[in-house]
Amino acid sequence: MRLRLTPRETSFYDMFAAAASNLVTASKLLTELLGAEVSARPEIAERMRAAEHAGDDTTHAIMRQLNASFITPFDREDIYALASQLDDVMDYMEEAVDLVVLYQLDELPPQVADQIEVLVRASELTAEAMPRLRTMKDLTEYWIEINRLENQADQIHRKLLAHLFSGAYDALTVLKLKGIVDVLEEAADGFEHVANTVETIAVKES
Amino acid sequence: MRLRLTPRETSFYDMFAAAASNLVTASKLLTELLGAEVSARPEIAERMRAAEHAGDDTTHAIMRQLNASFITPFDREDIYALASQLDDVMDYMEEAVDLVVLYQLDELPPQVADQIEVLVRASELTAEAMPRLRTMKDLTEYWIEINRLENQADQIHRKLLAHLFSGAYDALTVLKLKGIVDVLEEAADGFEHVANTVETIAVKES
Amino acid sequence: MRLRLTPRETSFYDMFAAAASNLVTASKLLTELLGAEVSARPEIAERMRAAEHAGDDTTHAIMRQLNASFITPFDREDIYALASQLDDVMDYMEEAVDLVVLYQLDELPPQVADQIEVLVRASELTAEAMPRLRTMKDLTEYWIEINRLENQADQIHRKLLAHLFSGAYDALTVLKLKGIVDVLEEAADGFEHVANTVETIAVKES
Repeated sequence: MRLRLTPRETSFYDMFAAAASNLVTASKLLTELLGAEVSARPEIAERMRAAEHAGDDTTHAIMRQLNASFITPFDREDIYALASQLDDVMDYMEEAVDLVVLYQLDELPPQVADQIEVLVRASELTAEAMPRLRTMKDLTEYWIEINRLENQADQIHRKLLAHLFSGAYDALTVLKLKGIVDVLEEAADGFEHVANTVETIAVKES
Repeated sequence: MRLRLTPRETSFYDMFAAAASNLVTASKLLTELLGAEVSARPEIAERMRAAEHAGDDTTHAIMRQLNASFITPFDREDIYALASQLDDVMDYMEEAVDLVVLYQLDELPPQVADQIEVLVRASELTAEAMPRLRTMKDLTEYWIEINRLENQADQIHRKLLAHLFSGAYDALTVLKLKGIVDVLEEAADGFEHVANTVETIAVKES
Repeated sequence: MRLRLTPRETSFYDMFAAAASNLVTASKLLTELLGAEVSARPEIAERMRAAEHAGDDTTHAIMRQLNASFITPFDREDIYALASQLDDVMDYMEEAVDLVVLYQLDELPPQVADQIEVLVRASELTAEAMPRLRTMKDLTEYWIEINRLENQADQIHRKLLAHLFSGAYDALTVLKLKGIVDVLEEAADGFEHVANTVETIAVKES
């Protein structure tokens, strides 16, 4: 059995795992939203808001711990970056749900489901990778796969833009849908930022 | 009487206070713009530009001082972050004035006044808090109140988006107004970023 | 002959020069795109994609080197910032090309040529400045000129926004053109961020 350095240092791993697992919850709420009746959306938005608050609490706990620790398991700026970037992804996903409810759109273009499927997959991969920060093992495949997913998200996003401007929608609807589709793309980019930071941490430790 | 450490270290506090007091000027120019005749707007934009230049000068003075100092009153990266974030808020407020003049909008939705009222209050709180960095006393209530204001700004912004897409405006007007309303929301977010950095500094010193 | 410190430290300069010279290639592809037939655009976009991949490779090489080096020619955070900011400019220029192809716009407003001319000039100045990081000589005129160019880009951008909303275009076309014009403005801002970091590095060394 591998000895942990100290309980204090250990808990960063637990907190990052908690933040990532919270992103899995959020991405699944996005899937749920897509399949829900319009009348059921506000209740899903309510649960999304709760997930976002839980995320904020975790981010604050990491920052407090960071400021209180003399010794950290990896560089302070990387801990700070990782916590902020996980928090950003949550904010983008929550904003997407918010906008869907706010704009009262009856229907979303079918490719939005593809965007969300990528986010679910990316959040699961991220949640699986966080505990591996402890041993720094088997992280390469995680960030390669996240990069692949981000490229895929990018292509879906471009196709969605072409679709939005194809003439099928009036300008106001384009504006609304573009707001949602763009923020989902930012969430996908956000997962890549997280993976880049994990790569930086792993390279330093190797 | 409390001895100051050195004149050099002291002046960071003065420069942060100057930057924040400049944001009070800017937020009051936003209020003035709202009540002004369309023909009076360019002159207000001129004064806003002057405030923004004064802000730039303060930011550059902080950066020069930071690069020239071996010892700083708090962590270099926090000084850098604080200066940049105060500068960002100024840029957003100036952009809002610019867009109002550029788009020649006769009238703005009434809730824009609520957005600006939050910015005035946030700038005043920030200006009052900066001198307290010297003693690190009584800062908690400042960042709690800024967070409350940012939540309020967020709700006003959401209501404004719903209003813009309610059918009361044509698509081009929505695009213009959304540009203004979004940049005012970014200014409110910017005040929260400033407060988060102040919290980080205070926690480290405690 | 001036002795280089070590081969390792030297190569940062070479890599920054490579990244900047890649931005010259990209800005010239923007010019080429503007003069090309609609049918020739996808091939230009293909070459832009290749330039962007080359840029990514350089950025990754800098980051790997940074993580592997105990001693760096200037502060780690400045190397990181410079590499990221050069990469950002490339991303904005590639996105502009992508959007032009995607939106199948027959014609762009003539002032877009002015935006791109500024980007070509800024990229050339940046490419000429990078090798001067080695001696830290003659950098002042570079960042003064970049700041001047950024102000110029800002004015062109404002005029373009006024033109887009003048009533000459329908709302969907405004949305498309605004996407392109805004991302070109972000590229111009990006060159200023690069210059600010160069200034920071130079001030520290002086």
